[in-house]
Amino acid sequence: MKSFEEALDLMLSCEYHAQTEKVDIMECLGRILAEDVTSDINMPPFDKSAMDGYAARRCDLGKPLEVIETIKAGDIPQKKIHTCQCSKIMTGSIIPEGADCVIMVEETEQHTANTILFTGRYRKSNIALKAEDIAVGTVVLKKSTLIRPQEVAVLATVGCVQPLVFKMPRIIILSTGDEIVEPHIKPSNGKIRNSNAYQLHAQILKMHFKSSYGGIICDTPQKLEETLAHALSNHDLIILTGGISMGDYDYVPDILKKLGVDLCVQKIDIKPGKPTIFGQKHNTFVFGLPGNPVSSFVIFELFTKPFIYKMAGHTYEPRVLSLPMADDYTVKGINRLSWQPIVITPQKTVEAVRYHGSGHIHALSKADGIMRVEAGKAKILKGEQVHVRQI
Amino acid sequence: MKSFEEALDLMLSCEYHAQTEKVDIMECLGRILAEDVTSDINMPPFDKSAMDGYAARRCDLGKPLEVIETIKAGDIPQKKIHTCQCSKIMTGSIIPEGADCVIMVEETEQHTANTILFTGRYRKSNIALKAEDIAVGTVVLKKSTLIRPQEVAVLATVGCVQPLVFKMPRIIILSTGDEIVEPHIKPSNGKIRNSNAYQLHAQILKMHFKSSYGGIICDTPQKLEETLAHALSNHDLIILTGGISMGDYDYVPDILKKLGVDLCVQKIDIKPGKPTIFGQKHNTFVFGLPGNPVSSFVIFELFTKPFIYKMAGHTYEPRVLSLPMADDYTVKGINRLSWQPIVITPQKTVEAVRYHGSGHIHALSKADGIMRVEAGKAKILKGEQVHVRQI
Repeated sequence: MKSFEEALDLMLSCEYHAQTEKVDIMECLGRILAEDVTSDINMPPFDKSAMDGYAARRCDLGKPLEVIETIKAGDIPQKKIHTCQCSKIMTGSIIPEGADCVIMVEETEQHTANTILFTGRYRKSNIALKAEDIAVGTVVLKKSTLIRPQEVAVLATVGCVQPLVFKMPRIIILSTGDEIVEPHIKPSNGKIRNSNAYQLHAQILKMHFKSSYGGIICDTPQKLEETLAHALSNHDLIILTGGISMGDYDYVPDILKKLGVDLCVQKIDIKPGKPTIFGQKHNTFVFGLPGNPVSSFVIFELFTKPFIYKMAGHTYEPRVLSLPMADDYTVKGINRLSWQPIVITPQKTVEAVRYHGSGHIHALSKADGIMRVEAGKAKILKGEQVHVRQI
Repeated sequence: MKSFEEALDLMLSCEYHAQTEKVDIMECLGRILAEDVTSDINMPPFDKSAMDGYAARRCDLGKPLEVIETIKAGDIPQKKIHTCQCSKIMTGSIIPEGADCVIMVEETEQHTANTILFTGRYRKSNIALKAEDIAVGTVVLKKSTLIRPQEVAVLATVGCVQPLVFKMPRIIILSTGDEIVEPHIKPSNGKIRNSNAYQLHAQILKMHFKSSYGGIICDTPQKLEETLAHALSNHDLIILTGGISMGDYDYVPDILKKLGVDLCVQKIDIKPGKPTIFGQKHNTFVFGLPGNPVSSFVIFELFTKPFIYKMAGHTYEPRVLSLPMADDYTVKGINRLSWQPIVITPQKTVEAVRYHGSGHIHALSKADGIMRVEAGKAKILKGEQVHVRQI
């Protein structure tokens, strides 16, 4: 049995070779950069007005200024600013030669038909200097960066419309277990509906990755072996749900071994999710997640998500908070490290979500996060800071 | 000029009639339920074993127990448990008649070929009772719920494979401004690349919504009017980027008014993002966002995102934290409420992202959130709690 940290380290230290591809900037959200991105331009490319106003010489601001030109964004100024002259200028436009400041429209008044007066107090130039944000050749985004909307803006700015990213792993979800039926079927006695596969599919989609769903494999060793062998040759990651426990009818681990999968994790000292397995065969990986929805969700968050990001070239950092407990809380089952669904109250305190057993379907639907409770910790007192991972 | 709260209230109180549609459960992530979802089954549908073990009678646990049957998940038990009998049972299987507990395999030992002995200490029944999670007819998800992976699991569990959701608003992004060129073009003097439209597209995609991009409209009143008139008749939400300021060449507000748009917000007392506009024409809405990427990003987060969720039938609650400032911080421009990009340090303190002017492209790429600073607040002291919205 591996500890939480041992299991995670083992997974994240596996070697995986990801290929790369170019994607369109409109499609790159959530992808991971496979190379540094540099700028092909200066930003701003010229000394630029940060205001709608008048470009002038600071030393002239006490006197009436003749308006000699109007410069709008995209225009090239035609006239140089000389003593007691100014040009009307729009935000983003090129500062004309001779000018060293822009004064705001709101701080001027018309003096004569063709002259204005500055009525404000001089504070700053209102000029964004050429290259002050980015100079040509600067690395603006590093390899392995996850592309969020902010990074899309950076890519657009430097003209990187086809960023080189790591290929997304080809992920397949397979369900096992004679007792599960697909959600459109009303389960007869002894059967339950498959919810894990759909939840996993959505967890992957939420990361802006994709998975295919291979359906429910009936629990005969032959059928399982055939399906797993095929999945191993055609995917980078297989996620199995259900059927990974100690039961007589859970053939999965043995079949995986027979197929050449090195099962380096077969149990994790964690609650929920002890019967989690993880293995590798060459460049293909297998996760076997526990059969109940809460365990499956939590184990995906703790292990599978960071692993998928690793496959895609990125080091995932979960969002962790330290918040005070809202009330005294007695821990159930203190022999293992546990992760417990919690709600963050409007007062920013933590309340455990009351649930019985790891299969309670509502537990996660109400939760804002999961709280880490160390093994041996029997009670958390009101006000005590707890470690929360947002979900 | 509207205050932040006035502007937001005005937007969120607008009437919008969203239509509904059924979507496949595999495609419903991020959608919003248009009706309550009830369960068509009991959960669990039967008294179910929470363990791999032996189903027995608690009163017999001190004696050798005869194993009379093996029940795997999906099986219907064939035999009733009588005195000193038990059935081997797998997790998730139906509890046989007569049994009132399940003992773990690990806490038993083989006694004779056909009998076992319980070697543990009795703690709990390990039986999940019929309907203890959900009874038939119970509302499991309420109308207006945002569907996350956890809710997908609930939908699958209750057999709702085609949930009724609100239609996504048809969103179009239009860029204006003679000075902007598309990212694939190297800008000549006076021009800058369009990054806002791509950032906005990704911000919407991150919400799992969609937008179309209408390109850059050149800044002639005729062309703008034509394009806006067409957009107004074919979309539910138009997002304009660039061209919404006080400049002589920013015709947009006047054209919108001419086209019958009621511009109920024309300026917001906020930094960045003062030149934000918002309007309505019947069931179609228009946002005009400021032209620089940081302002555009922030205003989208503060106003457009909650508004899109409102259009889709959901009340958006941003993730707000209260964290201490890492160091003394002097606020620039204290006359307006401001939202400042910040980093959350590993110590869970807040550091402002140093940036000059709202156009600094890197400011958001480094940020974890935006910090609210009230108007008039000149300095935030080290250790002072600040209001942070995660991005």
